[in-house]
Amino acid sequence: MKEKLTVIKIGGNVINKQEALSSFLEDFSKVTGFKILVHGGGKKATEMASDLGLEPKMVGGRRITDEATLEIVTMVYAGLLNKNITAALQKMDCDAIGLSGADANCIQAHKRIVKEIDYGFAGDVDLVNTSAIKVFLENKMVPVFCAITHDKNGQLLNTNADTIASEIAKGMSLDFDVELVYCFEKNGVLQDVNDDNSVIENINSNSYKDLKNNKIIADGMLPKMENCFESLQKGVEKVIIGNPEVIANKNQKFTTLTL
Amino acid sequence: MKEKLTVIKIGGNVINKQEALSSFLEDFSKVTGFKILVHGGGKKATEMASDLGLEPKMVGGRRITDEATLEIVTMVYAGLLNKNITAALQKMDCDAIGLSGADANCIQAHKRIVKEIDYGFAGDVDLVNTSAIKVFLENKMVPVFCAITHDKNGQLLNTNADTIASEIAKGMSLDFDVELVYCFEKNGVLQDVNDDNSVIENINSNSYKDLKNNKIIADGMLPKMENCFESLQKGVEKVIIGNPEVIANKNQKFTTLTL
Repeated sequence: MKEKLTVIKIGGNVINKQEALSSFLEDFSKVTGFKILVHGGGKKATEMASDLGLEPKMVGGRRITDEATLEIVTMVYAGLLNKNITAALQKMDCDAIGLSGADANCIQAHKRIVKEIDYGFAGDVDLVNTSAIKVFLENKMVPVFCAITHDKNGQLLNTNADTIASEIAKGMSLDFDVELVYCFEKNGVLQDVNDDNSVIENINSNSYKDLKNNKIIADGMLPKMENCFESLQKGVEKVIIGNPEVIANKNQKFTTLTL
Repeated sequence: MKEKLTVIKIGGNVINKQEALSSFLEDFSKVTGFKILVHGGGKKATEMASDLGLEPKMVGGRRITDEATLEIVTMVYAGLLNKNITAALQKMDCDAIGLSGADANCIQAHKRIVKEIDYGFAGDVDLVNTSAIKVFLENKMVPVFCAITHDKNGQLLNTNADTIASEIAKGMSLDFDVELVYCFEKNGVLQDVNDDNSVIENINSNSYKDLKNNKIIADGMLPKMENCFESLQKGVEKVIIGNPEVIANKNQKFTTLTL
């Protein structure tokens, strides 16, 4: 029987507000069993770039990680955010260890191949070093990953935090019963995008097809959902989508995805 | 019989020059046996502060870590420098893991007590979590420490890198035969401060007293030496002081300190 591992991803909506972050970390510190936190970036990197007089570089509406941007996200994500989150969890007696993909070669990626757009130093994940991550877990450490990876050739890379969470979840599912939790600003996947109470509590591959056909799930939610079902197909037990309070088992609605 | 552990500290003179750093890391990756790297800050944090329009805060000639400075050193030391060094070592097949003192509670400190001067968020080390560091070493990981610690109460602290190196060396000496190597801009402790070839190759507690009495070792070198002898008294086998090439066993002079 495999043991349970919870992989939880938080994004800017939690990170940008000190109070929301503290409250989330308090809840996270109480999650029982093996757990891993993956955090996105938030607005601090954008503010820092602006303070340094750098214009965000956009091509075709997409943000490009040029060298100056990579330097800033490395500082903000792997330095400022990751170490403050780690220190806050340590205060709560959660033995956090802050990591980038370069540390112990935990997450190896390659610079995104240039097709129409050159995304610069954006990384697409190649492999997750599950043995290293297991060493931390077996020694009661709680890995806290920022969204910086490397290419094993000396180059750091800016990588999507959702992708890092799902790659870790998939990789670890060989040895653990993995539950992947995406915390975002809504209460879950919504029947009516304007009604935060219209949470669809359970979605499986079949009902997902109907929801897609009926255009209830559309636009920005589609790639997120495709990504979730891919994780389920690759061995993740369950994906949960909800607001950050979902991890505290408070009596509220959220969405559970299963195959 | 205890196994050998080499703790190596580098400072700004190596970190500020990309070529010098690469060459040092190449040498470091070839050091055999258990090893730990501790790196200082270099001038990047000062440049960043100046780019952001912050004036260095000095009191009585001493630099003060105010909140804005702490934010910058956390970004630069724990983010930019630590992750780039880690990624560079990974390229050289050295399984580096970049760490601050907050990670796995490796180095716990307290905010320096205010006497005449309030140093702000400067940390004085209380304890080194040798069990966590042993977990990394036993799993063939190579810890790379930046000079950021925490107080286990959620507060990150800016800490002297020489001190971090000696505290780690002392702590680990219970389980290892520890050699502590300080790399700096000179070839070693010099008989004549203006002649870089006048390296004093061996110093012990007795000859140190003579060197002090004869004012051959004076000024800024004194606290460094006191610190080294304190490490030796607390269990470190040997302290080596030399330029960064000393770790490559190149045929050159350097200073060895023993009790």
